[in-house]
Amino acid sequence: MADSYRIGIIGVGLIGGSIARAARLQGVATEIIGFDSCSKNLLEALRLGVVDRIAESASAAAEQADLVVIAVPVGVTQTLFESLKPIWSDQVLYTDAGSTKLDVLAAARRCFGRVPENFVPGHPVAGAESSGVGAASDSLFVNKRVILTPHPDNDDAAVKKISAFWSALGGRVSLMDAAHHDAVLAATSHLPHVLAFALVHLLGCKDDQQEIFQYAAGGFRDFTRIASSDPRMWADICLANRDFILPLIEDLSRELREVSEIIKLDDNPEHLLHYFSDARKARQRFLDQLIT
Amino acid sequence: MADSYRIGIIGVGLIGGSIARAARLQGVATEIIGFDSCSKNLLEALRLGVVDRIAESASAAAEQADLVVIAVPVGVTQTLFESLKPIWSDQVLYTDAGSTKLDVLAAARRCFGRVPENFVPGHPVAGAESSGVGAASDSLFVNKRVILTPHPDNDDAAVKKISAFWSALGGRVSLMDAAHHDAVLAATSHLPHVLAFALVHLLGCKDDQQEIFQYAAGGFRDFTRIASSDPRMWADICLANRDFILPLIEDLSRELREVSEIIKLDDNPEHLLHYFSDARKARQRFLDQLIT
Repeated sequence: MADSYRIGIIGVGLIGGSIARAARLQGVATEIIGFDSCSKNLLEALRLGVVDRIAESASAAAEQADLVVIAVPVGVTQTLFESLKPIWSDQVLYTDAGSTKLDVLAAARRCFGRVPENFVPGHPVAGAESSGVGAASDSLFVNKRVILTPHPDNDDAAVKKISAFWSALGGRVSLMDAAHHDAVLAATSHLPHVLAFALVHLLGCKDDQQEIFQYAAGGFRDFTRIASSDPRMWADICLANRDFILPLIEDLSRELREVSEIIKLDDNPEHLLHYFSDARKARQRFLDQLIT
Repeated sequence: MADSYRIGIIGVGLIGGSIARAARLQGVATEIIGFDSCSKNLLEALRLGVVDRIAESASAAAEQADLVVIAVPVGVTQTLFESLKPIWSDQVLYTDAGSTKLDVLAAARRCFGRVPENFVPGHPVAGAESSGVGAASDSLFVNKRVILTPHPDNDDAAVKKISAFWSALGGRVSLMDAAHHDAVLAATSHLPHVLAFALVHLLGCKDDQQEIFQYAAGGFRDFTRIASSDPRMWADICLANRDFILPLIEDLSRELREVSEIIKLDDNPEHLLHYFSDARKARQRFLDQLIT
């Protein structure tokens, strides 16, 4: 049974709001205090009952809590650490929900000189193309991977408690090295988002000239769904994790050149068939291990 | 009210089978005779009641019908035309469901010397990643675009009748020039499929080394769904429509280089935000005109 906390949630959007809703549903929150830099979103969080109270600043929300969840775009993590530094407490647990982890650790080091032992970096691998507290759901993390990336200075008890907290929200918690996390997520999440944005950007320009979208079907809708994700969040992620993302864009470009060559040469129609068949098998391997 | 036909369906897979089911449901089939080069699939079509009878060859199925629907991978269209040539009849209507149209017209010209006036090329813009007659559905074409690409030699009455037939199956019929069709579909369908296959091919190789798929989430599942499509059908389409697809792969590669440059330079974080925001707006424009 997980402990119950007075939770301070900084960034009450889709993820922060869903953490609040799930924590309340699962009985691991005695009280939830929220802060969000967007006051409209913050007030909506209060109106919807996602948070019990709102605070006037991130540090005010954190100061009243014994568990602080940082759920802001990764690009503002360091600024947030700076604002929490004066009230950072040994008696409080801290975790975050950022999609990249090396840069969050680096931000902590820049701010505190070292990563605090009571800060346990985390990433719930769950989301939706909608954003804001209105899209928050108490079941967003059920059966979803939650990756924690503990660091050498971490207090073991803190890691265990944060792990139990995410498990209580329904997540399937894994521990992983931060660099490995960033490499894996660059491949399975960040690269697909870049691709989807790039494709839709390209076709958007073509649509201006010849109205191609009206003949696109369900496959296109699914393929491009992630291009409706929050642009700021994804710009942040791509800049934060550029060291892993840029080589992958290179790899993918090489892969596209290979397909082009196969199509161009056309000396053996079986080549393209084999290439596509291998890809289909790889996707089946992914489906076979998908948690449903 | 559409006419009712004795329908010969050549290729009783997902598309041919769905045409059969929808035609029966809508009362536009007096009898359905099927042929498929895969005898297992053909026998299943009979067992499932998708067709009333099966024929021992494509020409035998066509010979007994007054409306012939060709629903085979576009790569075998010319061979099929050759086999139908001896029994081709002025009294019969012919249409097809191929995803590319210029090459189907070219195949007809190579076989007949000209495109027969009673052959009306068509393309139902509908599908699924599953294939075979077992996946056929009588509602596959409901509210889906069906593009007919009449040619100069077409008999107007034939075009009207084929148009009425597809409308009866639930489709929203548009007429379009074959080259325009191929250009539009290359962008909204063929390019996304190539991209999905290429991405999954790349990540499949990486997964062999470090098991990345287990941390992929719902966004990845949707993004790669079309990479589970029939590899042979898609190899055929890419080779048939290479003249439009290859330049688009080039365009997309250029687009990826642009994104890479923006991420690399990082002189202004707003650049990437603007790029992603533009893409998101383009997708919203697509969603706004999607038929639901």
